[in-house]
Amino acid sequence: MENIITAQLVSVGTELLRGEITDTNATFLASQLPLLGIELQRITTAGDNLEDLCQILRQAMNFSEIVITSGGLGPTQDDLTREAVAELFNETMIIDLQLEHNLREMFSRFNREMPPHNIKQAMLIPSAVPLPNPRGTAPGWWVEKQGKVIVLLPGPPREMTFMWQNEVLPRIKQRFPVKSILTRTIKTYFIQEAKVAELAHSFFQKDNPTLGIYANPDGIQIRFLATGDNAGQLLDEAEIKLVEKLSPYVWGKGNDTLDGIIGAWLIKHGLTLATIEDFTGGLLAGLITNSKLSAQYYRAGVIAPNDNAKTEWGVTAEAIIKFGAVSSEAASAMAIQVKQELYADIGISVTGIDKEGRIYIGIADQSETKTWQQQYQAGRPDNRERVMMAALFRLRERLIGLNFTDT
Amino acid sequence: MENIITAQLVSVGTELLRGEITDTNATFLASQLPLLGIELQRITTAGDNLEDLCQILRQAMNFSEIVITSGGLGPTQDDLTREAVAELFNETMIIDLQLEHNLREMFSRFNREMPPHNIKQAMLIPSAVPLPNPRGTAPGWWVEKQGKVIVLLPGPPREMTFMWQNEVLPRIKQRFPVKSILTRTIKTYFIQEAKVAELAHSFFQKDNPTLGIYANPDGIQIRFLATGDNAGQLLDEAEIKLVEKLSPYVWGKGNDTLDGIIGAWLIKHGLTLATIEDFTGGLLAGLITNSKLSAQYYRAGVIAPNDNAKTEWGVTAEAIIKFGAVSSEAASAMAIQVKQELYADIGISVTGIDKEGRIYIGIADQSETKTWQQQYQAGRPDNRERVMMAALFRLRERLIGLNFTDT
Repeated sequence: MENIITAQLVSVGTELLRGEITDTNATFLASQLPLLGIELQRITTAGDNLEDLCQILRQAMNFSEIVITSGGLGPTQDDLTREAVAELFNETMIIDLQLEHNLREMFSRFNREMPPHNIKQAMLIPSAVPLPNPRGTAPGWWVEKQGKVIVLLPGPPREMTFMWQNEVLPRIKQRFPVKSILTRTIKTYFIQEAKVAELAHSFFQKDNPTLGIYANPDGIQIRFLATGDNAGQLLDEAEIKLVEKLSPYVWGKGNDTLDGIIGAWLIKHGLTLATIEDFTGGLLAGLITNSKLSAQYYRAGVIAPNDNAKTEWGVTAEAIIKFGAVSSEAASAMAIQVKQELYADIGISVTGIDKEGRIYIGIADQSETKTWQQQYQAGRPDNRERVMMAALFRLRERLIGLNFTDT
Repeated sequence: MENIITAQLVSVGTELLRGEITDTNATFLASQLPLLGIELQRITTAGDNLEDLCQILRQAMNFSEIVITSGGLGPTQDDLTREAVAELFNETMIIDLQLEHNLREMFSRFNREMPPHNIKQAMLIPSAVPLPNPRGTAPGWWVEKQGKVIVLLPGPPREMTFMWQNEVLPRIKQRFPVKSILTRTIKTYFIQEAKVAELAHSFFQKDNPTLGIYANPDGIQIRFLATGDNAGQLLDEAEIKLVEKLSPYVWGKGNDTLDGIIGAWLIKHGLTLATIEDFTGGLLAGLITNSKLSAQYYRAGVIAPNDNAKTEWGVTAEAIIKFGAVSSEAASAMAIQVKQELYADIGISVTGIDKEGRIYIGIADQSETKTWQQQYQAGRPDNRERVMMAALFRLRERLIGLNFTDT
């Protein structure tokens, strides 16, 4: 790629240096910059210290064309990002009457008097263009000077991401126009990150398209990005090769979610679902009901965490004695019973985890009942989330296996 | 405080600069350092670039006494943290026979041959002491040179936190002994972070004790830390003042969890619990069943996301028509029914969220049924988690209100 634009992020706030909060702003901004053809060179986290901030900003500007800060735009004496930029450029901050007006109006809308120190948030240096912040009291700054761009954003993620989308993104696109940049994402499951990396990297020896591999609870995602006039073609070619290599593991693309895919399939075929859970204890139902679409297919659910509850839900006392409450037999009986009792077309059950790390997933539909045994490393804190996703993957497998004729 | 020890963190990995993962290692280490009397001055995130890494490490060493890196200790060409430190100190890396032996043994334990490039992970410079990593193939380094300490840790959080606890913490304590440092944590709910800050900061004008305020899903936590011979007394004084000011909002201390407190209370009084959820859709049950102790008091749970399911669980069709499915009446009927049907002493229900952002929590016990209406800003992504925690807080309130005689 010709002429790469470089950037640095500066996260400001003593609360970050004390570990009081995790810097998700940096993650968000870092994931956004490649989409603009911008290469992030460094992220620096600084406390509320003017001298430090000035030094970091000066250094960042020396090495990169764009510097984006988040945090330190509050109304208190500790909030020093504006002051640091003013000092850096040797400019004086003055109150902007329009910003002051907006700020006072915002306070009066909430029937509150503006505390005197909030006036700081209406100040600008002559080189700064204010960036509106409808979700908070701190406007951002857009500063172009000495051939560089410095962007000041507030720390709260709700405010920062909104302003990024609406104010910063369009300005960066205009200031640093690039040939078309396109991205595509492929989503996989039941495959390790290292294996994906091994299979995928062979297709990405060159700079264009570039590759990012993201490990998520719903599996490993591969994002690839191409620039230039033939970006679309490059992505098509890469996608075909990747899907070919990864095919049994690929379950979605782009913004697909697993519960979304399953929900759409059930709605399309007019089928309903019920859940019964041990171990995941309600997390599976929680994920399903997080989407409003679930109202169209999800009947209800049960949490059956002990033998008593399981015998209420179809597992006979004899079966528990003979096979145990964590068994293929229990998973099967629970799936069948929940399907019937909750008037659903499909019942899905989870039971586990035993001492050997085994869990069982059961799925009952109109024609048959199938169970799967899966193994986990006992005691890992993310096992419940992994089992929840595994249950959805088995459900997807089963639905595809049903082989309904698409109409 | 006399003689403050200073530190910097350096997080290494291009995946961080691409936003593929969030840097939770920095948060963890940053939260640990105050407990050792160490002041974190800066966090820098660098890509897999030797020149950059050397420059960042050199600068960090010039300003701080301790530099801790995480990441970049893998076996590939991209993993350059060892190389950067070797270059920085102008030392040559050689294979350590003991480390090589350990590494080969680890691979053979998994019946795998060691790939040739993994030999990198058995290399040391003369100044480095290896830090064992039982959870992975990359040992850490402890380097003392030029009056400074540099610690190299691997990137995977499971490995890093384990090594911090077992290898780094004791070495730092020995190398930088400090007078006793004590901390205490107070946990609050139903109070805003800004309000806590306002109330708490007035007690923390000075350096000792210092104050940290952490916003968590289970409320705002205040951690205060004191050093010196009278640290315990300082904390006692601060705690008394804080609890006095915040008293109606304080629900726990130290490692208390809300579900833990509720569970202990129910177990102590020999009472059992059942849940029924709309809106939270299983998350409340999921939190409760996440603790093994719940086996002693949690009977079972139901997810009732629609009118059909609610009428199965005690809400009459007439009540739904008259009051709606999101109403005090529905919450009340659901709590009573789930208590009876699941043979529990206490039933708790959640129903919501309506267009005005209202949810209802109902709690039925042997003597009476009580409901609460709560308001949320519709559409916020964390509403379900907030409602789940609110339900637990109402349950705690109700349990205390029951006023059992402690025996």
